[in-house]
Amino acid sequence: MSRPQNDVFLRALLRQPTEYTPIWMMRQAGRYLPEYRETRARAGSFLSLCKTPELACEVTLQPLERFPLDAAILFSDILTVPDAMGLGLYFAEGEGPRFQRPLRDEAAIRALPVPDPQQELRYVMDAVRTIRAALHDRVPLIGFCGSPWTLACYMVEGGSGAASDYRTIKTLAYSRPELLHHILDTTARALIAYLNAQIESGAQAVMIFDSWGGVLSASAFREFSQAYLRQVVAGLVKERDGERIPAIVFTKGGGLWLDALADTGADALGIDWTIDIARARAQVGDRVALQGNLDPAILFGSHDAIEREARAVLDGFGANPGHVFNLGHGISQHTPIDAVEVLVRTVHEHSREARA
Amino acid sequence: MSRPQNDVFLRALLRQPTEYTPIWMMRQAGRYLPEYRETRARAGSFLSLCKTPELACEVTLQPLERFPLDAAILFSDILTVPDAMGLGLYFAEGEGPRFQRPLRDEAAIRALPVPDPQQELRYVMDAVRTIRAALHDRVPLIGFCGSPWTLACYMVEGGSGAASDYRTIKTLAYSRPELLHHILDTTARALIAYLNAQIESGAQAVMIFDSWGGVLSASAFREFSQAYLRQVVAGLVKERDGERIPAIVFTKGGGLWLDALADTGADALGIDWTIDIARARAQVGDRVALQGNLDPAILFGSHDAIEREARAVLDGFGANPGHVFNLGHGISQHTPIDAVEVLVRTVHEHSREARA
Repeated sequence: MSRPQNDVFLRALLRQPTEYTPIWMMRQAGRYLPEYRETRARAGSFLSLCKTPELACEVTLQPLERFPLDAAILFSDILTVPDAMGLGLYFAEGEGPRFQRPLRDEAAIRALPVPDPQQELRYVMDAVRTIRAALHDRVPLIGFCGSPWTLACYMVEGGSGAASDYRTIKTLAYSRPELLHHILDTTARALIAYLNAQIESGAQAVMIFDSWGGVLSASAFREFSQAYLRQVVAGLVKERDGERIPAIVFTKGGGLWLDALADTGADALGIDWTIDIARARAQVGDRVALQGNLDPAILFGSHDAIEREARAVLDGFGANPGHVFNLGHGISQHTPIDAVEVLVRTVHEHSREARA
Repeated sequence: MSRPQNDVFLRALLRQPTEYTPIWMMRQAGRYLPEYRETRARAGSFLSLCKTPELACEVTLQPLERFPLDAAILFSDILTVPDAMGLGLYFAEGEGPRFQRPLRDEAAIRALPVPDPQQELRYVMDAVRTIRAALHDRVPLIGFCGSPWTLACYMVEGGSGAASDYRTIKTLAYSRPELLHHILDTTARALIAYLNAQIESGAQAVMIFDSWGGVLSASAFREFSQAYLRQVVAGLVKERDGERIPAIVFTKGGGLWLDALADTGADALGIDWTIDIARARAQVGDRVALQGNLDPAILFGSHDAIEREARAVLDGFGANPGHVFNLGHGISQHTPIDAVEVLVRTVHEHSREARA
């Protein structure tokens, strides 16, 4: 394994000086790209796209061919882990992800296994190796997983909990908290093994997506999400072949809890667009780098608005080291390609000028 | 008009000392009550329930018969105002509210009228008068409206914007902001007339629901929501018959913006459960009262958990004047009745003891 030619992203995560602010976009390999839609159609289904390393590699690289992005991210899904834990992931047409066997009774919860990532999740490790080979060390590859709390939401609700206001899992949290803690601890152990296997296979940074942490109260967030984010980060391999492997934690809607998030031990925090980045930076100081935080809907605006808002994020963070530009959430499938071109160009040019 | 026998709610909003912490619940007249479902069935539809003053009065009073709540809230809907502005509100079965004529072109936006609340919204004023008479000054009656931004979301998206990530209105915000400002200013003027008419008809406090403010970036929130919340509050009648009419502003997901919200001129801020109430109190100091902030999902937990979490909210706010207990969002239709009994009893008893 060697250092990527473009290591600006890795240096920014470790708060080292960079010549410009690196940018990548959550869900950058996705439906807004016609070439993605073509590969996805060829794969037959989203899941077979995830489970076929050559196709996962193909879509991972597509956005890099179009835009000078500073990182690639493994094409996969956070729900591969509960699937490997035996819950039976499937995608109902137009309904999002579902599980055939959601966690609904104590016996199933107590029997929850920690999968071997080299067995049940071997296809992910094959994808990581295939992508690393195809990248030729151009930019770093990010591995990822969901957070224990976010995966538990899907596992207990049986799909996205948004429609039910997370009623099933919150009922568990406020009536049988010890059972929820068992799910969260088991999942955290599964995720440590999973991310470390991704690192062993070639991932050069890792990100933990706590997509649903923001639905909790402040105290419940500490008890049911932050504690397990910290457990996962603590269990990660910190270095491979002499290179630091930075860890990013992203709690969507976690702007109020940046102190608790910085205390997870992560090198960087993802932030969504509801928090002013200057305020976030003032709050976390030099403890962690920040990744974010443009509202992805701004990419539907005029090119002038995209440039203005991107510059405002860069200027808000300021000339300090430790900023990775990103959207505050995954890019929308409806995003025009030329908006992404304007964004990437603005971030690179404006941040170079600001340093000059 | 005379002072209600139980004026604890009004005094708490004005940060005057009270013997205990008052409680009411957003959506307290709702589907979790069998008697509500019975009246709703009799009305035939949700809209005819809103538009028939006697039935709106009946459901407004139902929760007060069951629980010793400290305020009543007008039974109505925030979308009555855009309906009166000519957009054609209807409720598609299982789909939530929709508009027949969403605002999709400049001509329609420029032609948007400010309705006369005594004409197009007379049924609301009749409901307020009917409820006041039926209440016999037992507890105060709260009038309400949606915020300009939240109503504009519905008016531009044509229904709830959540499914589309507010793409249509955000595209407008970032490509034709002057058109969005026109919608917001027109709606703010309509809301001032509407709330003042409710006050004239007997509402003793008013609340502005900014349900979708939290989907904006920090800077867009100030520009597109906060500025118009401030405009509405500034236009409100502050006193009637020598009694102060307190105004409450509630931005769901607005925990990061409490300073901006306190600057709207509101007497009290509603807060959801994502912010620790002790932190919120420290942030706003003596500028405003606070209303909140139990996660409504806690009502699905054990009675022990309900008592513990309710006490934590009360203790978090502390012994200062200026707290109205509430949920952080509307009560769920699936809530067990006995959970509400436990909550109301705990809030009253624990807050009395804490003062003793």
